[in-house]
Amino acid sequence: MTLFPASGANETLTVIGVIGAGSCDSATGEIARSVGALIAERGAALVCGGLGGVMEAAARGAREKGGLTIGVTPGDSRDDVNPYIDIPVVTGMGHARNVIVVHTAQALIAVSGGSGTLSEIAIALKTGKPVVAIGKWGSVEGVVCAEAPVDAVEKAFELI
Amino acid sequence: MTLFPASGANETLTVIGVIGAGSCDSATGEIARSVGALIAERGAALVCGGLGGVMEAAARGAREKGGLTIGVTPGDSRDDVNPYIDIPVVTGMGHARNVIVVHTAQALIAVSGGSGTLSEIAIALKTGKPVVAIGKWGSVEGVVCAEAPVDAVEKAFELI
Amino acid sequence: MTLFPASGANETLTVIGVIGAGSCDSATGEIARSVGALIAERGAALVCGGLGGVMEAAARGAREKGGLTIGVTPGDSRDDVNPYIDIPVVTGMGHARNVIVVHTAQALIAVSGGSGTLSEIAIALKTGKPVVAIGKWGSVEGVVCAEAPVDAVEKAFELI
Amino acid sequence: MTLFPASGANETLTVIGVIGAGSCDSATGEIARSVGALIAERGAALVCGGLGGVMEAAARGAREKGGLTIGVTPGDSRDDVNPYIDIPVVTGMGHARNVIVVHTAQALIAVSGGSGTLSEIAIALKTGKPVVAIGKWGSVEGVVCAEAPVDAVEKAFELI
Repeated sequence: MTLFPASGANETLTVIGVIGAGSCDSATGEIARSVGALIAERGAALVCGGLGGVMEAAARGAREKGGLTIGVTPGDSRDDVNPYIDIPVVTGMGHARNVIVVHTAQALIAVSGGSGTLSEIAIALKTGKPVVAIGKWGSVEGVVCAEAPVDAVEKAFELI
Repeated sequence: MTLFPASGANETLTVIGVIGAGSCDSATGEIARSVGALIAERGAALVCGGLGGVMEAAARGAREKGGLTIGVTPGDSRDDVNPYIDIPVVTGMGHARNVIVVHTAQALIAVSGGSGTLSEIAIALKTGKPVVAIGKWGSVEGVVCAEAPVDAVEKAFELI
Repeated sequence: MTLFPASGANETLTVIGVIGAGSCDSATGEIARSVGALIAERGAALVCGGLGGVMEAAARGAREKGGLTIGVTPGDSRDDVNPYIDIPVVTGMGHARNVIVVHTAQALIAVSGGSGTLSEIAIALKTGKPVVAIGKWGSVEGVVCAEAPVDAVEKAFELI
Repeated sequence: MTLFPASGANETLTVIGVIGAGSCDSATGEIARSVGALIAERGAALVCGGLGGVMEAAARGAREKGGLTIGVTPGDSRDDVNPYIDIPVVTGMGHARNVIVVHTAQALIAVSGGSGTLSEIAIALKTGKPVVAIGKWGSVEGVVCAEAPVDAVEKAFELI
């Protein structure tokens, strides 16, 4: 039901997801940070799982460029998220929060990662959501590969 | 794991939840709109269930004051949210999304509502989250009553 | 898709939910145990939240009469359930598991309880599922009151 | 809290999960049916996603041997499950129900499948749950391969 005339309504924000492991080496972290920065520079919000590693590096990159960051956290406290998250979405739902990250993003960029990341890629493929991957996952049918952050972010926006 | 020094990190946003029915009369809508506006004026983000009625009116009020609005939607499409939502958090989890609204908000303001609203109030009480109510729910033990939007928003911020 | 002819297919089991607090006094426990026993005697399976108190007492009652018991547990381990559960359904979803208890039951019987129980009653009312209550909740519109276990179980089966 | 002495308490049932696509060819269906039958013959309950294809064939096989079948369904109605399910666990949570299938099973047997199946395998690997696969998934690190139903069920029970 729409109570009011639509004055004041505008478009929702574009939201891009970044997925990857909760801990990572510094080279992987730098890639994630660049991905986050490039997403912010295009004016999109970034959604991730809210924890450390790739999630933190991507959120840091986005925030350094003035972007908005959303962390969908598995625990039941907003204090669990990394320090670069503007909006902790607190689920208390453990691994099931992965599904929310996927549904909330309009496209996903995977930066390496392990089984948790694979579960998000699989849900994305199941639901027809675009997935661009850097550094891994090229053998998973349906995943679009990218060499570098610029390339990955370019492709993600094209695929929305 | 923290990859980087904390430069660039800041506080997460304060997030207040507004809960109520998915359709409502215009008097109730005006109350919700005022609640949303007052939340935005204090610099907090607003989280709601993303649909119509009280959720839409509150989001409209917040956005009219330049506030940020988050809609945690039960369906699996970002197109389901009302036009005043900046960030659709898409769960695909039906009524279980009510739990996420509660966990994500630091305090909740109920504007009338029915069974769905009551489920959110109950989860909030179960988890020790403050609930302020306008127009109903005064008989539920643990709910803080308010007469008007100004009063309700004042109390919600005090109780965080 | 149905692969095979329906030979061997039969009706699914009738499933009744029992909801209430995770700890309780012995009088309340005896009521829950009787409710569980009566459900089993009618050949239905019992679903509950899998933990202690009313959930445990009801599961005990059902199992003592040879009934089948299902515990939908909030944690991520099957070891969390009480010793009278035949089938731990492990969600890892915290309070959101309450929604699953409600959806899985064809009717719910509340034995006293607090905010968690109220959240389940509210979701049930929201989704049109019958709720029969003993000892409390008579003031919640839509809840059917019962004086004693026999009465409650009788009404629950009538309302399916 | 344990209200009563443990008399009457027994072990919970062993629960094995079977995962695979919601539609399948008849050869794949026969494999799933054999897997289900072998699980039932060992006295374990079978959990699956409750829908058609591999889920239905496995549930059929289990029931034909007198086994107990649990279907964790994504929709919000118990009528959505295939006709070989004894206990529909109704989640209303869409793809997030995959996580519940994984948590509920003590070991998982994958019979071919697509992206949905891959998401379950990935969550299982993430949480340290054994996964045995027939016909596919041999390239996913951590998955145990099996040639045939007998082999797969044997390995699944060994790995619990």
